[in-house]
Amino acid sequence: MALGAVTLPLIGYVESPFADKFAVPRQPGLAPAVVSLLRFYKPYCTPQAFREIEGYSHLHVLFLFDRVEYRDFHPEVRPPRLGGNQRVGVFATRSPYRPSRLGLSVVKLERILHLSASEVALEVTGADMVNGTPVVDIKPYVPFVDAHPEATGGFAPEPPPLKTVTFSPEALMALSTLSGQEREAIAQVLSQDPRPAYKEAQGEDERVYHAVLYGYDIAFCVTEGGVYVLNALQSNLGL
Amino acid sequence: MALGAVTLPLIGYVESPFADKFAVPRQPGLAPAVVSLLRFYKPYCTPQAFREIEGYSHLHVLFLFDRVEYRDFHPEVRPPRLGGNQRVGVFATRSPYRPSRLGLSVVKLERILHLSASEVALEVTGADMVNGTPVVDIKPYVPFVDAHPEATGGFAPEPPPLKTVTFSPEALMALSTLSGQEREAIAQVLSQDPRPAYKEAQGEDERVYHAVLYGYDIAFCVTEGGVYVLNALQSNLGL
Repeated sequence: MALGAVTLPLIGYVESPFADKFAVPRQPGLAPAVVSLLRFYKPYCTPQAFREIEGYSHLHVLFLFDRVEYRDFHPEVRPPRLGGNQRVGVFATRSPYRPSRLGLSVVKLERILHLSASEVALEVTGADMVNGTPVVDIKPYVPFVDAHPEATGGFAPEPPPLKTVTFSPEALMALSTLSGQEREAIAQVLSQDPRPAYKEAQGEDERVYHAVLYGYDIAFCVTEGGVYVLNALQSNLGL
Repeated sequence: MALGAVTLPLIGYVESPFADKFAVPRQPGLAPAVVSLLRFYKPYCTPQAFREIEGYSHLHVLFLFDRVEYRDFHPEVRPPRLGGNQRVGVFATRSPYRPSRLGLSVVKLERILHLSASEVALEVTGADMVNGTPVVDIKPYVPFVDAHPEATGGFAPEPPPLKTVTFSPEALMALSTLSGQEREAIAQVLSQDPRPAYKEAQGEDERVYHAVLYGYDIAFCVTEGGVYVLNALQSNLGL
């Protein structure tokens, strides 16, 4: 059998509060307050193509990790969950540095939006995709075939531990234009400690980090007590 | 944002007992006795690329539905589970007639085979793929992100009902060269009534059907009492 390739159409893209890949949760579902919109190009956006999708509570989104530079095949990667210094086979991880560059995430379907008579979009929560991420496919999550709670899970058997997030008065004031759910989403995202894995492994450090979320450049540091949000400034990146 | 396309490498292919798409289970996991082999092309077949994959009990396989002819986009399909005459949006189904032509199945990882020092293959059970199906990606199934037993499931909330399968003495004799597990796999496949959906919806019919499994052309009919296997002849199709 011959080696080959296949070309797939991009059917749409994600609108999310994540302006860039820093601070995007490392797995879907970890920041359930994050609302994203799945938008579709013509002809895929027609209401007919989504008929009866409301019957499903969850969806699989197949998307392209378009922010990673991928050239040659590297058989091994260093997953952040292992501190970033242990090598694992790429097919034993969900790393974006894979030949297909495809990501697969389960998201919760909140509702179907009728943007016009000929265009729908899907409002979903828990997505872990950068704003603008190209979408390759949407499939319903069918519990009797997709849910395997009995499965065992390698080196990442449970969600990463969460950190307490505290906002400075300045940050709270700046973010007061956002909704309560948006502020909750920011707290959920930061509670996962989005620093590079090797920093996380080292514990406390003295750097100030910046995450761009909901149009704000959010400055934070990580101390023994958790994540402390220093301030938030409107950003020209993102939404 | 512009409409576009993406080209992905095919990393390997499936070796399965299903010589063609007739009789392939309509979802993965429905015929757990079916053993398939995932084979990989160079350079993807290197043992390094699968390092630590044995830690996972289940895998996601992303594959190409290469046996369906797909040209223009049709927003609606008629799923077999609804009798084949009710229209549903393509993105509300797992139909192969979708823009990406990608299939997604959860399979059970049985073991990793070292075919040589530089080539591994994965032995999996429960796969629902035709022999020769191109593989696009392999991802570990991570229960804390992928298992959502609380999800609700649209028009297919549970597995299809199973039929009793009975073998004629002639068929049993012919299939005696197969292993017990292979005969069990044949029974599991046929118990799902692989006839076209509209026939199934009509109930009993008088036709003799042929499924090519494990190198045998298996003739069967469906009566009120279940599936009756008439005979099995060696076939030049398939394995």
